[in-house]
Amino acid sequence: MKITTSQAAAELLKNDKILLIAHTSPDGDTLGGAFALYYALTTMGKQVKIRCSDPLPVRFSYLYLDYKDDDFLEEYIVSVDVAALQLFGEKLSGYGSKVDLCIDHHPSNGLYAQKTCLEPTATATCTIVYDILKILCADITEMIANCVYTGIATDSGCFKYSNTSPQAHRIAADLMEYGAKYEEINRFLFDTKSKSRLLIEQQILNTVEFYCRDRVAMIIISREMVESSNADETELDGVSSLPRMIEGVDIGVTIRERADGSYKISLRTSNAADASEICRAFGGGGHNRAAGCMIFEPLDVVKSQLMEVISNYVS
Amino acid sequence: MKITTSQAAAELLKNDKILLIAHTSPDGDTLGGAFALYYALTTMGKQVKIRCSDPLPVRFSYLYLDYKDDDFLEEYIVSVDVAALQLFGEKLSGYGSKVDLCIDHHPSNGLYAQKTCLEPTATATCTIVYDILKILCADITEMIANCVYTGIATDSGCFKYSNTSPQAHRIAADLMEYGAKYEEINRFLFDTKSKSRLLIEQQILNTVEFYCRDRVAMIIISREMVESSNADETELDGVSSLPRMIEGVDIGVTIRERADGSYKISLRTSNAADASEICRAFGGGGHNRAAGCMIFEPLDVVKSQLMEVISNYVS
Repeated sequence: MKITTSQAAAELLKNDKILLIAHTSPDGDTLGGAFALYYALTTMGKQVKIRCSDPLPVRFSYLYLDYKDDDFLEEYIVSVDVAALQLFGEKLSGYGSKVDLCIDHHPSNGLYAQKTCLEPTATATCTIVYDILKILCADITEMIANCVYTGIATDSGCFKYSNTSPQAHRIAADLMEYGAKYEEINRFLFDTKSKSRLLIEQQILNTVEFYCRDRVAMIIISREMVESSNADETELDGVSSLPRMIEGVDIGVTIRERADGSYKISLRTSNAADASEICRAFGGGGHNRAAGCMIFEPLDVVKSQLMEVISNYVS
Repeated sequence: MKITTSQAAAELLKNDKILLIAHTSPDGDTLGGAFALYYALTTMGKQVKIRCSDPLPVRFSYLYLDYKDDDFLEEYIVSVDVAALQLFGEKLSGYGSKVDLCIDHHPSNGLYAQKTCLEPTATATCTIVYDILKILCADITEMIANCVYTGIATDSGCFKYSNTSPQAHRIAADLMEYGAKYEEINRFLFDTKSKSRLLIEQQILNTVEFYCRDRVAMIIISREMVESSNADETELDGVSSLPRMIEGVDIGVTIRERADGSYKISLRTSNAADASEICRAFGGGGHNRAAGCMIFEPLDVVKSQLMEVISNYVS
């Protein structure tokens, strides 16, 4: 059942012993939303804990500085920014059928929860969380402002992407007034490169291939490149946006070799093509401008299968 | 004499045959501000023309699509985002002493104009221009929205830098509602790299040197690198922010070889150091986090002179 933000606020108000679930490969929106709810709800006297199948990236540690873990038996389960059951991950897969409330902004949300507060046009799940916190008259502390800002900045590419709404800007203005450390957060999120990231970026740029009169650019990230550069997973965040940055490119394709020999594909598109439509042809999905899928074939087959579909979108 | 935005609006209202001057190496703020004023004032029936000593970069052509040049004898001269006389450039240097009104946000503004509308805490000159246009009850067209948005996005690094104000976000929200093509603008400004830019970036990354326990990173751009990559001036925009992006770096230094053999220095700093203070030691200036200067010495002397000053700021 779909519910409004007011109804979601009422649900949170009347329940206690709350488990908040973040999605696998946790990003700034799922973590920002979960921790913002954690800080607000614990201040209201509730017992709250956060769980995620994957470890929390160190670069988001500023979000959980004041988190105190508490291992009570949960009575109410809330998933935050988790669009589909498979995003619960292995460790938390058992919770998939038990979610009381899902708060999310992904249009593709599988409506797996008892109640779903879904705003498919919201810039980030964090803008929905912010609305809920305002309805709850929560005290927006600097920490909560940092959490919500992180989610909005993450999902909007710092207000650059098409999903950025006027409301997202207005909330960001409020959050700055509540003390959000926007400069530091943006530096962490967007303007910090480790030396190993620099190294792998140089290697990746050497793999660029162009198709369809340079309107499609493809990069390949092999396991060997990742290992030789010492880059870890979080250092590869955002790499998939590189090919679309090249002038004239409408579709950017990133092919990443996985440990099992399969390939993970990330697509980024301009308004010339729907990335999620292309990825659905391979059993994947996502947003209009950013989507992904997996292909279990050798690299040359992966490339040709992809280009067979993609070329239809570049006429 | 310093004047308020209301007084600046009144000045513009009562004058005609207006010359708007943009600074040399024109960026999105000087051009966005000048063209926003041009569109609003011509709609009010005034004769307006824009001049700049340097050619207007092609990537800003979306700002001047509807500009019709008109070579009348000016009766009122307005400089937009021009902090100092030397930024008029050679062609327009004769106007330096004749400026009736300067609209600017640089704290270092030389107050060379008859009247100066200076808001040193404004994110961009374009936020001041927007205030003036609102006072004038100008119709904010999609084109004007694009101009103002471009200035704000340019100077705030798309809302990332410390100079971003809540007001800048709220104006951006308004501009989106007025039809600003923010996604395309941000793609032009921040997410588009030509192939020659890619090439020169790779070369530049090979020159990175670290000092002061890796808290200072320095890159060098030689004339040979620029020539061999075929990169033009606009393709080098933003290169100077690369060294400070490396994890742990507080001061990023870019040394660029000029045609006359001198070196142009661009500094980018975190809150650990004041970039303009460092550059003032070499006769330059700018903002707290971004400043520049020129040094007329051989490269090794340039490096050692710079590091002698900079090392005092990294304790």
